[in-house]
Amino acid sequence: MSLLHEILDVHPQRIQMDKDVVSECISQLCSCRNVCIVCADACLASPDVKDMTRCVRSSLDCGDICGITAEVLLRQIEPNWKLSRKLLEACIATCRICGEECQKHADEHEYCRVCAKACRITEDTTEKLLQEVAAAW
Amino acid sequence: MSLLHEILDVHPQRIQMDKDVVSECISQLCSCRNVCIVCADACLASPDVKDMTRCVRSSLDCGDICGITAEVLLRQIEPNWKLSRKLLEACIATCRICGEECQKHADEHEYCRVCAKACRITEDTTEKLLQEVAAAW
Amino acid sequence: MSLLHEILDVHPQRIQMDKDVVSECISQLCSCRNVCIVCADACLASPDVKDMTRCVRSSLDCGDICGITAEVLLRQIEPNWKLSRKLLEACIATCRICGEECQKHADEHEYCRVCAKACRITEDTTEKLLQEVAAAW
Amino acid sequence: MSLLHEILDVHPQRIQMDKDVVSECISQLCSCRNVCIVCADACLASPDVKDMTRCVRSSLDCGDICGITAEVLLRQIEPNWKLSRKLLEACIATCRICGEECQKHADEHEYCRVCAKACRITEDTTEKLLQEVAAAW
Repeated sequence: MSLLHEILDVHPQRIQMDKDVVSECISQLCSCRNVCIVCADACLASPDVKDMTRCVRSSLDCGDICGITAEVLLRQIEPNWKLSRKLLEACIATCRICGEECQKHADEHEYCRVCAKACRITEDTTEKLLQEVAAAW
Repeated sequence: MSLLHEILDVHPQRIQMDKDVVSECISQLCSCRNVCIVCADACLASPDVKDMTRCVRSSLDCGDICGITAEVLLRQIEPNWKLSRKLLEACIATCRICGEECQKHADEHEYCRVCAKACRITEDTTEKLLQEVAAAW
Repeated sequence: MSLLHEILDVHPQRIQMDKDVVSECISQLCSCRNVCIVCADACLASPDVKDMTRCVRSSLDCGDICGITAEVLLRQIEPNWKLSRKLLEACIATCRICGEECQKHADEHEYCRVCAKACRITEDTTEKLLQEVAAAW
Repeated sequence: MSLLHEILDVHPQRIQMDKDVVSECISQLCSCRNVCIVCADACLASPDVKDMTRCVRSSLDCGDICGITAEVLLRQIEPNWKLSRKLLEACIATCRICGEECQKHADEHEYCRVCAKACRITEDTTEKLLQEVAAAW
């Protein structure tokens, strides 16, 4: 069991959503944040960087927003579900935009292929959590 | 002129929104981020911290989301307006929630009064930018 | 293989340190960041929050600094080793401080026990990377 | 008086350093963070982006580290001065590196000139705070 699972299990406030769905989403968001940071850096180091500026930008945005969404989801004290929904929607938007941009370069750049994959998985996982939140609140 | 205004003026890509509205919004977001970080810390140091946990949480969320929204708005390369809208909406939500929570404690705690004020100003400025973005795209 | 490993493997710039040591350190930093965010939140939700304010503060600092250290380490373009050293030193300091503070509460609070463990592991892993960096540059 | 000054003035815990020096340093760090984010974006949008990748990288690092240093300095609850020193040292290092890199491009790129200036001011202000901290603890 990861340390994150372990500490969420002993949080004094009962987690108000399916803990597995939340944990899975947080893990994906953190993984996507890291992959996006590396993708921006790899695009910048690529010989055709001139054609990759849009991709760098969308990766920087996606990394930032995934990181903050994870941070807000990690907090269990009286979450505000309206805010959670708005933030998850922003997160889904950034993952879709970055995933589609990276997908365009997936054939030439392996790092864009990996980043597109990370974004797709994170978009799906975040969408699943959004539906849970929307159904419950 | 602030260094931020100075550097936005010489950015190679023309800023695609009213520069004054954007700059004003970014400044407010940064100010609100700082005030929220201090408010969470001040609530934590207050003798009645037990009654302030919800306020700490909403201040931490608001500080995080304002900070990231500023970061995304600072980037001028081919912004995606759908994402900008979603992010501004999340930002408005967090400012409203934090502002309302802090307002409840404004009589007992001066720092909550200041934070409520910062959140209200930031909510208004962000709402104004959102309307510009929504009208244009 | 994790997506992070996968994307680091195809980065156009050869990673200038032992890739396993760097990846391991980044993973630990991200895990520690998450655990610290939850620990601060759990302390805040605990009935004895009044005695936990120092622990909340050190957890917030540790989460922030681990997160940024990971972000800087993820970038492979011409790293500046002097900066890496300074940042790793700050990271080791925050992990030690937070780990020691959490350890004091480990008997009463299981989340502090988990956080103390995360901080110890991260301190060790970061120390190991610092020694690699110091030896090479 | 700025909202930040206002809220620091009413924080329940007396600020343990010269409040003007701390506030000034925090303001500079936030300004430098913003300028660095814009500089990275402007370099990326420049026609000679291929020659600017190192500058983008150092600006991204500098923006991140200034932002987190401000966040830690904003918290007044029992600061750990050893950590403050280490973090200020990392911050001074990143400002120097980014400032020197931007200075190299200051003649061709106005945004690099502005960023070099922001980094120099921030390095000086942070150095001043470090000396205060080192003298007192």
